[in-house]
Amino acid sequence: MRFSRLYAPTIKEVPSDSDLISYELLVRGGFIRKVAAGVYTYLPLGMRVLSKITSIVREEMENAGCLELLMPIMQPSDIWKDSGRWDDYGPEMMKIIDRHKREFTLGPTHEEMITVTVKNELVSYKDLPINLYQINTKYRDEIRPRFGLLRGREFIMKDAYSFHTDESSLDDTYKIMYGAYEKILERMRLEYMAVEADTGAIGGSNSHEFVVLADNGESDLRYCTECKYSATDEKAEYKAVYEYPFESEKTLEEIRTPDVKTIKDVSEFLGVCEDKIVKSLLLKGRDGFKMVLIRGDFEINISKIKSYFKDQTIDLALPEDVFENFRVPTGFIGPVGLNRADVEIIADISIKNLKNFVVGALKTDYHFKNANYDRDFRINAFADIKLVEEGDACPVCGNPLSKKRGIEMGQVFKLGTKYSEKLGAFYTNEQGKQMPFVMGCYGWGVSRSMAGIVEQCHDENGIVWPLNVAPYHVVITLINTKDEVQNSTAESLYGYLTGKGIEVILDDRTVSPGFKFKDADLIGFPIRITVGKTVKDGRIEMKFRKSGESCSVNIENGFESCLDKITEEMNRL
Amino acid sequence: MRFSRLYAPTIKEVPSDSDLISYELLVRGGFIRKVAAGVYTYLPLGMRVLSKITSIVREEMENAGCLELLMPIMQPSDIWKDSGRWDDYGPEMMKIIDRHKREFTLGPTHEEMITVTVKNELVSYKDLPINLYQINTKYRDEIRPRFGLLRGREFIMKDAYSFHTDESSLDDTYKIMYGAYEKILERMRLEYMAVEADTGAIGGSNSHEFVVLADNGESDLRYCTECKYSATDEKAEYKAVYEYPFESEKTLEEIRTPDVKTIKDVSEFLGVCEDKIVKSLLLKGRDGFKMVLIRGDFEINISKIKSYFKDQTIDLALPEDVFENFRVPTGFIGPVGLNRADVEIIADISIKNLKNFVVGALKTDYHFKNANYDRDFRINAFADIKLVEEGDACPVCGNPLSKKRGIEMGQVFKLGTKYSEKLGAFYTNEQGKQMPFVMGCYGWGVSRSMAGIVEQCHDENGIVWPLNVAPYHVVITLINTKDEVQNSTAESLYGYLTGKGIEVILDDRTVSPGFKFKDADLIGFPIRITVGKTVKDGRIEMKFRKSGESCSVNIENGFESCLDKITEEMNRL
Repeated sequence: MRFSRLYAPTIKEVPSDSDLISYELLVRGGFIRKVAAGVYTYLPLGMRVLSKITSIVREEMENAGCLELLMPIMQPSDIWKDSGRWDDYGPEMMKIIDRHKREFTLGPTHEEMITVTVKNELVSYKDLPINLYQINTKYRDEIRPRFGLLRGREFIMKDAYSFHTDESSLDDTYKIMYGAYEKILERMRLEYMAVEADTGAIGGSNSHEFVVLADNGESDLRYCTECKYSATDEKAEYKAVYEYPFESEKTLEEIRTPDVKTIKDVSEFLGVCEDKIVKSLLLKGRDGFKMVLIRGDFEINISKIKSYFKDQTIDLALPEDVFENFRVPTGFIGPVGLNRADVEIIADISIKNLKNFVVGALKTDYHFKNANYDRDFRINAFADIKLVEEGDACPVCGNPLSKKRGIEMGQVFKLGTKYSEKLGAFYTNEQGKQMPFVMGCYGWGVSRSMAGIVEQCHDENGIVWPLNVAPYHVVITLINTKDEVQNSTAESLYGYLTGKGIEVILDDRTVSPGFKFKDADLIGFPIRITVGKTVKDGRIEMKFRKSGESCSVNIENGFESCLDKITEEMNRL
Repeated sequence: MRFSRLYAPTIKEVPSDSDLISYELLVRGGFIRKVAAGVYTYLPLGMRVLSKITSIVREEMENAGCLELLMPIMQPSDIWKDSGRWDDYGPEMMKIIDRHKREFTLGPTHEEMITVTVKNELVSYKDLPINLYQINTKYRDEIRPRFGLLRGREFIMKDAYSFHTDESSLDDTYKIMYGAYEKILERMRLEYMAVEADTGAIGGSNSHEFVVLADNGESDLRYCTECKYSATDEKAEYKAVYEYPFESEKTLEEIRTPDVKTIKDVSEFLGVCEDKIVKSLLLKGRDGFKMVLIRGDFEINISKIKSYFKDQTIDLALPEDVFENFRVPTGFIGPVGLNRADVEIIADISIKNLKNFVVGALKTDYHFKNANYDRDFRINAFADIKLVEEGDACPVCGNPLSKKRGIEMGQVFKLGTKYSEKLGAFYTNEQGKQMPFVMGCYGWGVSRSMAGIVEQCHDENGIVWPLNVAPYHVVITLINTKDEVQNSTAESLYGYLTGKGIEVILDDRTVSPGFKFKDADLIGFPIRITVGKTVKDGRIEMKFRKSGESCSVNIENGFESCLDKITEEMNRL
C-alpha cells in the first residue's frame, strides 16, 4: 500500500478530550475517530489492527473446538425479564422500541439469547458438550463513557457459551478456554496475568480475568511472588495473620465524641490507634439492611459482600436512609445495643480476637471504648470482606502480596445452571431424565484489545505494535521522491518485499523526511527501511521500532539481505 | 467436522410462517433461526456460508482498490437532520434515545456518516479518488418484515463510498465497482442481470442493480433480447411506437355515466376501447397537487413520476383529499375545465397524437367524449411515466421487451454532490478553490445474498449450494457406524480429504441411512460420498448434488481416484 493512497490522517496535537495514552495515540495515529461519546469509527489502519485481532481470536476459538454462529444484536426484552436481569442491568442497557411498540435491547451480552437458541434444539446428552461463539457488536449505555476504546458504548466482543451435562465436563472446557486465552495473549506478545475474578452480574461459581499489564490500567491486581496466587482487587482474599496480644476485657465506657466524623478523627480525639477501632457500616440490598464491621485501618470490599450475600443490588445505605431507620448519623453507627434481629452483623476476619476496641455508640456524638464482641454485641458470622492491599498475607502461602495494574482483555466464567434453570433449558440424560444444562461463558474484548495493546506497547514517540497485530510490518520511507535512483530503489524494494508476503507501506508522500519519520514512529510500524542518499552507495538503512536498533544493509546484489534482516526481526517480535 | 459435533438441527416440517422457499430451506437445513420478526440467528452452517460470502465480497472490494473501515451502527440524529433524510426515512429508521436523552438511529445506510468522517480529513485533490467500504450490521424497521433474510430488520450489508474531484473520475470507479460486482456473482456461479435502476431515497443520477434471477424474486425486470437493454420495472423506459390513424377533431360531448367507476366500466358503458380512454390521476407531493394522464389500458409508474418531479414524497392523492380540493370523486377527475394553474398536467408519451378520447368530466357522474388536448385542455409536458410491460418497445432498439424476476443483491449509485453539499464536505482543488466532493456509493446485501443464492439454487429435495459458498464441500455418509470396515474406511477417507484441504463433514451419527441422505440433500453439500456395504468390495459411491450424477470409485489402492473425482467436480462447479 502506498501511503499517498492510504487514508491515515495523523494528527500532531493531543486531542483535547484525551484521558488515556491509548486513546491519544490511536486518534493521533489515524486509527480511530470519535463519533459520539463512547462511539467510534475505525479508519483503515484501525480496521486492519481490528481484523488481525479478530483473526487471532477466531483461530484460537476454532482450535479450542468452538463453533461460530451469529446471534442478533437486537434482543426481545422478554428473555431478559425471564432471566431476571432486565432490572439488574437497568439504565446500562440500550433499549429500542420498534414501530409496533415492542421493546428490544441492544445486547450487552448474550447468555439469555444463546440459552433460548439451544433450548429444544440440543435435546440429548449425546449433543453435549458443545461450545458456541460469536464475534459481534455489543452495547452498554455507560453513564460516563471514557478512556477511548476501553469504556465505549458500542464495542466488539467475542463471546462463547458452552453447554455440558455436568461440572466435570465444564471444568474440561473451562481449562481449554483458559489455555486458548493464554494462546491469544502470547500470539499478541503481551505481558499478562490470569487472575481469579469476581463473577459480578454474570453470576456463576468461578471466574478468571486475563489482564494485560499496564500502569494506567483500570484493573487492580494482587499477586503473590512466592506461590503465584493472583486475583483482582474485587476478588483477592487474604490470610488474617493478626496476632493480638492477650488482654482481659475491660469495662465498656461511653464517651462523648462531638464533631468526630472519620476514623482518623476518632483516633486523634480518643488517642487510640486506628487498628483498635472497629468501623461499622450499614448496607442495603434486596432483603433490607445488613451491618458489616471491619478494622478502622482497613477498607471493605463491596464485591465480596455482594457475593457473600448473593445479592448484586447490595450497596452502602444512603445516610438519609440510615438516619430515618436508626436515628443516628452514619458516623456513630455501631453494633452495641442494636436491637434489630433482622439486621445480620458480619465482621471481617481481622476482628477475630480483637479486644477492648472503640465502636460507634449508636447515639449521636458518642462512641464506646473497650467494646468486646459476644459480651457486648452479637456477630452473626466472620467473613473475609476486606479490600486486600499490598503487603496483606497471601491466602495460600502467607507471603506478602504485591500489586500491579492492567487492562482486562477477557474473562471466563463457570455459570452452572443459573440461566438454564431460569429459562427452562433442559436436555435428556442417559437415564431419560430432563436436566438443566451446566453452562460456561467466555468473553473477549476485541475492540478493547486494541487499546489494551497500545497501553502496554508504546513509548514517547508513539505506538510500538507487536508484529502479529501491526497494521503493516514494514514502512519504506522514501526520502526524496524526486530523486530517480531513490524512487526506483524504493519501488523495486516495495515490489520485492510485497511479493515475499511482507505487508509493506511505501511512504511516497511529498512531505519532509522528518514528517515521515515522525508518522512512522507514531503509527508504530515494527520495521522502518529508509531509502535515501545512501542508495547511491548501494545501501539502505533499517530501524527496528521496538529495540530502537538500526543497521545499514548492502543492496548492491539485491534485496536478499534486507529480507533476511526482516525475517530475523519478525521471528523475534 | 463430524456431524455428531456440528450444531445443525435439521427440521422435516415446513415452518408455519414460511412465505418463501429460501426461508423454508434455510430454517429446515439448520442454517438460521428466527428470533423476532425480521431478526435472525445464524447457526454454525449459516455462519459458514455467511463467512464465505463475506470473504468473496471483501476480496473483490480489495481487488477494486477499496479500503476497509468500520463506522458505528449507532449514528447521532443530527447528521441525518442536516442531510434532510431524517424525515425521508421516517418510521423505517430504528431509533434509540440514550440515558442522557440524546437521539440516535441504528443506521439503515451510511452516506451521512462517511461524509462527515472524511470531511476536514481528506483536504486536497491529491487525496482523491478514494473508495472506502465496510461490512456491518444495518437496520430498517420494516412495517411488515417478511421473506426471511430478504426483508429483515437487522441485516448485514457491505457498503462502499467513493470520493472524487469530478464526474469522470467517478465514472472510472463506477465501472470498476460494476466489474467487481460482476466478479462476485461469477464467483458465486449465479445467473444474474445488471440492470438500470431507479435511485430512490439514496438519490444521485445513475444507478444499476445486480439481480440474481429467480422465479419468486421481488425484483421485476424488463430486458431486450436484441440490444441487451435491461432495467427494473421502476426504471424501465419504452419507445412510444403508437401510430394513431388520422382523425379530425370531433365535438366535445358531456355524457352522464352514473356508477361508472373503473376504466373497464367506462369502456363497457360507452362502448369505447380502453385505448381510447385517458385515465386522469391526481398526485400529491411536497409542492401540492399534480395531474397525470395515461392511456386507459396502461398503468403509471410512480417511481418515474417521483423522479420526474424530483420529489420522493409524491404519491397518489387520497380520495378524501381529492374530493375536498376538487369536489369530485377520483373516478370522474379529468383535465378539461381544470382552472388551477398551480396543478401541473403531465401526460404519458403514449397520448401524443391521440384524438377524440374519453376523459372524466371533473363533475360527479359525467365523462367527456371526443376530448382533444390543446383544444380542450392544456398539457404542461409529455413524459414517459408508464409502467413498462412485456411486449412494450425497447427504448433503444424498439424490439418487444421481455420480463424476468429476480433478487436484488447489490446496487451502485452515482451520487454526485448531493451529500457533500448538504453536509459541507469540501476539498481544495488544484487552483486552491473549495469544491464539494463528487461521490458514488455501492451497496451489497451480504445476508440477503444467502437467501438470493438459495432462491436460485435449490430443487425439491433442498439446497444446491454453489461450491464457493457451500458450508462444506463434501459429506461422507457412513451407512453403518457399527461396521468396523465401514467405520475405519470413513475415518481414513475423512482424514485423507481433510488433509488435502477439502472441507469435509463426516456423518457419523447413529441414525438411519435414509435420514442421512435426506439431510445431505436438504443441507445441500455439493458432493456426497457413501461409505456402505460396497467397501468390502473396495468401492465407495459418489453422488453430485447439482447434476444428480453418481459413480462408484475403486479405493483398493487408496483414495487418489476419489480425490480426482472431487477435484474434477469442484473445477466444474
